[in-house]
This record gives sequence, structure tokens and C-alpha cells, in this order.
Amino acid sequence: MAEVETVKNKQVLLKDYVTGFPKESDMIISTENTISLKVPENSNGVLVKNLYLSCDPFLRSLMQKPKPNSKSVFPGFKPGSPIHGYGVAKVVDSGHPKFKKGDLVWGMTGWEEYSLIQQADSLFKIEHTDVPLSYYTGILGMPGITAYGGFYEVCHPKKGEKVYVSAASGAVGQLVGQFAKLMGCYVVGSAGSKEKVDLLKNKFGFDDAFNYKEEHDLDAALKRHFPEGIDIYFENVGGKMLDAVLLNMNMFGRIAACGMISQYNLDEPEGVKNLIVVIPKKLNIRGFTASDYFSLYPKFLDLVLPHIREKKITYVEDIAEGIESVPAALIGLFSGRNVGKQIVVVARE
Amino acid sequence: MAEVETVKNKQVLLKDYVTGFPKESDMIISTENTISLKVPENSNGVLVKNLYLSCDPFLRSLMQKPKPNSKSVFPGFKPGSPIHGYGVAKVVDSGHPKFKKGDLVWGMTGWEEYSLIQQADSLFKIEHTDVPLSYYTGILGMPGITAYGGFYEVCHPKKGEKVYVSAASGAVGQLVGQFAKLMGCYVVGSAGSKEKVDLLKNKFGFDDAFNYKEEHDLDAALKRHFPEGIDIYFENVGGKMLDAVLLNMNMFGRIAACGMISQYNLDEPEGVKNLIVVIPKKLNIRGFTASDYFSLYPKFLDLVLPHIREKKITYVEDIAEGIESVPAALIGLFSGRNVGKQIVVVARE
Repeated sequence: MAEVETVKNKQVLLKDYVTGFPKESDMIISTENTISLKVPENSNGVLVKNLYLSCDPFLRSLMQKPKPNSKSVFPGFKPGSPIHGYGVAKVVDSGHPKFKKGDLVWGMTGWEEYSLIQQADSLFKIEHTDVPLSYYTGILGMPGITAYGGFYEVCHPKKGEKVYVSAASGAVGQLVGQFAKLMGCYVVGSAGSKEKVDLLKNKFGFDDAFNYKEEHDLDAALKRHFPEGIDIYFENVGGKMLDAVLLNMNMFGRIAACGMISQYNLDEPEGVKNLIVVIPKKLNIRGFTASDYFSLYPKFLDLVLPHIREKKITYVEDIAEGIESVPAALIGLFSGRNVGKQIVVVARE
Repeated sequence: MAEVETVKNKQVLLKDYVTGFPKESDMIISTENTISLKVPENSNGVLVKNLYLSCDPFLRSLMQKPKPNSKSVFPGFKPGSPIHGYGVAKVVDSGHPKFKKGDLVWGMTGWEEYSLIQQADSLFKIEHTDVPLSYYTGILGMPGITAYGGFYEVCHPKKGEKVYVSAASGAVGQLVGQFAKLMGCYVVGSAGSKEKVDLLKNKFGFDDAFNYKEEHDLDAALKRHFPEGIDIYFENVGGKMLDAVLLNMNMFGRIAACGMISQYNLDEPEGVKNLIVVIPKKLNIRGFTASDYFSLYPKFLDLVLPHIREKKITYVEDIAEGIESVPAALIGLFSGRNVGKQIVVVARE
């Protein structure tokens, strides 16, 4: 039997299940693993070199001890094992007919230097490389499809409608706002710093924006920005913000919910008190995740790639260097330290 | 000028705006009004004799002082003025081309012996009188369209799906359960007494039913009745029940909300804590009211009238006699005293 090349494989391990606000020390950078750069015989997996890792708020839900009967889309992290999430990677060896050595892919991967991905069917092959490769963690990856599916398919927007986006400078929000402007909507975003508010107004073209941390009365802030009410709310936050939004929704308004980041680190979630208005206002609240719209990925690319090339859509990334920066980058999402889509570069090629 | 006949007109007046749990003494029976039995000249209103009044939980929201900027479908009641709601009535005089003397109608009317209805366009003419006339306050009226629109148009049910109905023996719930059985669904209802639970199981053909007042753990009760989870929840209750239901919904489940009776008498609504599950479970919560589906009324009658005549659908009414019984009948809804659809008979013809 030929000798198989193995290499050292730096990994990000979960130290123990997380409760409350996650800390950098909940993860460990381990240098103890080695990995073969060949897929096992008779495997249809692919062996990849990870390039860009996508820090996303939903990963918080995978850090905690799974509840009995919980129905999660993704398996939770296991203490002592590498964490996983979306990323961009290069195929080093393939047992899968769809992929060959040298292909670039994006999808779920281990958060380590090299990964053997057994469910290679779930990977997307990257066909367009005239745009930054890192975009496949964001505008051209899971957050992009989230914004696209949520805005067009869930919200059914019409020209002139009033759109509110929370966490608006984040990976999904910045794109939703730009889609809304392309559609001819009036769009206001909220974020947690002056720098982010400036980005919303001056870079992403939102009609207006506000810093929610400076508003002691969110209901009043929304009434100021939406004197005619809100038709579409793109929900990334939950909790008190959702309660204030419900009071300002118009008849037959739509709320697309793909995240509630304000709630992820609470042991007991905040109660939403104004839910009853869904009846007289005939509101539609729909939860969704990007995977519901993966089948629309080619259609999505047809829409968004020309806009990127023509600079009609822009995208802001917050790039951390080196796998060692994963814990700080991931935890930073929950204090809003990132400005734009948070990415970690493991390797550039 | 010819002398115009006027008659004494007994009325139910709101005494003062209601806070908290409404009381019979919040309403007064007044005998001071008189009314002309002719519509004024050049009016396109109709003058009706009220026959059956429909006691519905939503009327509670019209009893309180309107909040600024509240967007209600119906105008609230005014202290010292007669209350209004759905009812069945006979046309005594008409200035409207659609109606003539002797016609039977249902729709919004004053809660008094005779009413001058200015917005006669909103009335439905009753064409089928081989079924009980009182049915046009319930199964063939607003609650019927609520059940029909909510179940078929909001929930998009499929054969074999698991359906849960709260307040299931009420005006809307009993019909939703029977629609679900006709569709081939598995349906469980909850209600607040043994008598109501027996009705659900033995008269309306629910697969199972439980008394929510005997369950200290609603989540456990739902897990017992829905070991495979809930696909469709027809929401009439809100609050703690909704929180327990959210934990038991299946992926892509639908929640049709037309009422949250548990919340109507609270100054501060209960918070719904488990709303975040709408995201991983991709739930759709939609608020609606009967009026959204009024345009489907002919289609609804085509479906439901044959079922009534063939006794494939049954309907239980709780009939109070005389306009003097309005306060007790209306208040009884909120303690669940009624068994089936609560009606008050003002006159039988």
C-alpha cells in the first residue's frame, strides 16, 4: 500500500457547551490533529483546503447542549471536536463525480485547515471567479440567498412599499436594503454604531438609518422614520425590536424572520407582547432559512452577479486573518464588533 | 307631509369604556329610544328589524377606549350609544337598490330592536332559508367564513396532516375541526369543560380532545396528543397556549390566527416566549379576519350548504332569549360559559 501524505491540521474545537453569552475561551485552537490529503478509498467525499470561514450568528445555536427533541437543521457542535460552518474551500482530492482537484466550492465545512467533507452533495461549485472569492461566504453565499429568498420570495415586495431592516449593516441586512432600493421601495435600516449608520446611508443607499442604541423608545424611533407605517420588516433581531415593529406594521404587512440575534444568548427568551396585532393588521410572519431557497441559487446568481460587476450592489466585509482569529471574530458578532460581513481567512489559495 | 310611524326601540348601550374583564353592568338596556320605520328620504340605507345577534369575542376590542393610531377594522363602541355587531335582520324599509322590504340579511347591525343601517352595501342577502335562520350568525355567517378562509386559504391543509384547534367548541373552532375531518386530517381540539370535550369527540367527530383547564403542562398535553407534532394550528386563544403550540409545531407548519381570547381582558398582554422557533421550523403565522374572505362567500356556501343539508356538518348554538340577555351572553364568552355559538334572539321574525 502506497504511503499516504498526512499534514498537520490546525482546528477550532468547542471546549464545552455554551450557556449565556459566548466567550472566546469557549473555543480552543488545537494543533494536535493530522489529516491525510487523500479521500479514503470507496468514499464519495471530498478533501478540501479551507480558505474563508463565514462567521454567522446562527452558529451560536450549535454551541449549546442540544435540547431533547430539538429539530435543528444542522448537527450541534460537540465538546472536544472541531466546530463547523459555512466556508469557501479548494478541493485537494475528490471521490465525488461532481468535483475534481482544484475546484473551488462553498458550503458546510469543518473549521480547520483541511476537511474531509462526506456530504459533498451539499457543496456548491464556484463557477465565477472574476468577483472576490470571499464573496461566496457572504453576498454570493448563504447570507446572499437568505436576503434574496427572504426579500423576494417571503416578502413579495412592491414598488413604493416601506421596508425596515434591523441589523442592517450585517451580512444579510446590507443586501436586503440594496434589493429594496433596486425594487423602488423606501428603506430604513437600524444598526448599533454611528459608523454602521453612516455605511447604511452613504454606501448602501438606504433612504435613512438610525442607531438603535441611542433610541430609548424604539416605537417612537420607528414612528419618526415610518410616519406611514411599515409594509415589510426583515427581522434579524427579535425581542424588543420586534415588539416595537409590530406596533408600526401596516395592514397586510409581511415579516420575514431569518434571525433573532438579540435572543441567542438569553437563557430565557424575552416575551413578544404585541403579537396579537397580527390579527387586526392581518400580518404574515414567516420564518425561513437560506436552505429553503438553495434551489433558486442559479436564478439568484443571474440577478446579483451583473449588479456586482456593474457596481450597482456593493458589499462590505470585515476580514480577520488566520484561523487563530476565529474565536474573537465569532464572538464579536454578538457584541456587534464586526462592521459588515465577518469572515476569517484561513488561506488565500 | 305624511306622518311617519315611529316605534319604541329597546337598545343595548355601552355604559363606559371597559378595562380588564368586562361585566354585565358595563352595558345598559335602554328603553328611551324611538325610531322611524322608514329610511330618510334620499338615503340609500336600510331600516331593519333585528332578529338574531351574534355574540363574538372580537367585540371585546370595541369596548375599550381606542388607542391613538389604532387601526381597527370596525369603529369602537361609544359610551351612551348602542353597541353593534353581526346579526341577522329583516328589511322593513329600503332606500338601497339591492334590498327590498321583507328581505332577510346578515351583517353589521346595531344591537337594538330596529336599526337604520347606512352602509347597506356591506350586508349579505340571505337566499337560502331551508336551514335555520340563526345559522347566518354562525356557520353561514362571519364565523363560518372565518373557519373556511382560515382553514383552506391560510393553512393550505393536506390530507393526513395533524391539526390542532383551540377554543374548539366555539363558533369557529367546531367548524374548523369538521372541515379538517372532511379533508382527511387528524384533528385534536381543546376546550374548557368536560361537556365541551364530549361535544368535540362525540358530536363534531374530532379524533381526540382535551380540557385545557385540567392540564397543568400544556406542552406535555400537546406532546401526548401529537406525538408526531402539529402541522396546522388554528389559533383562537393566544398567550400560554400559543407558546406551548410553538414548541410542538412541525417543520413548515402553519398557524392561522383569527383570535386570541385569552389576551382580550389583560391590561398588559402575556409575552410569547417561544416565537424564535419560527426560524428553524420555518413556520408561517398569519393573522386574518373573516372580511378578508367575504369575496369567497358564494364558493363557501356551495361547499357548506350541501354538507349541512346532508348532515355531514353539524353546528351547536347556545341561544339566549331576548335583547335583555345580551350583557350576560356577551360576557359569558370570556368565562367560557357558552356551549357552542352564542346567539341572542331579539325576535324570530
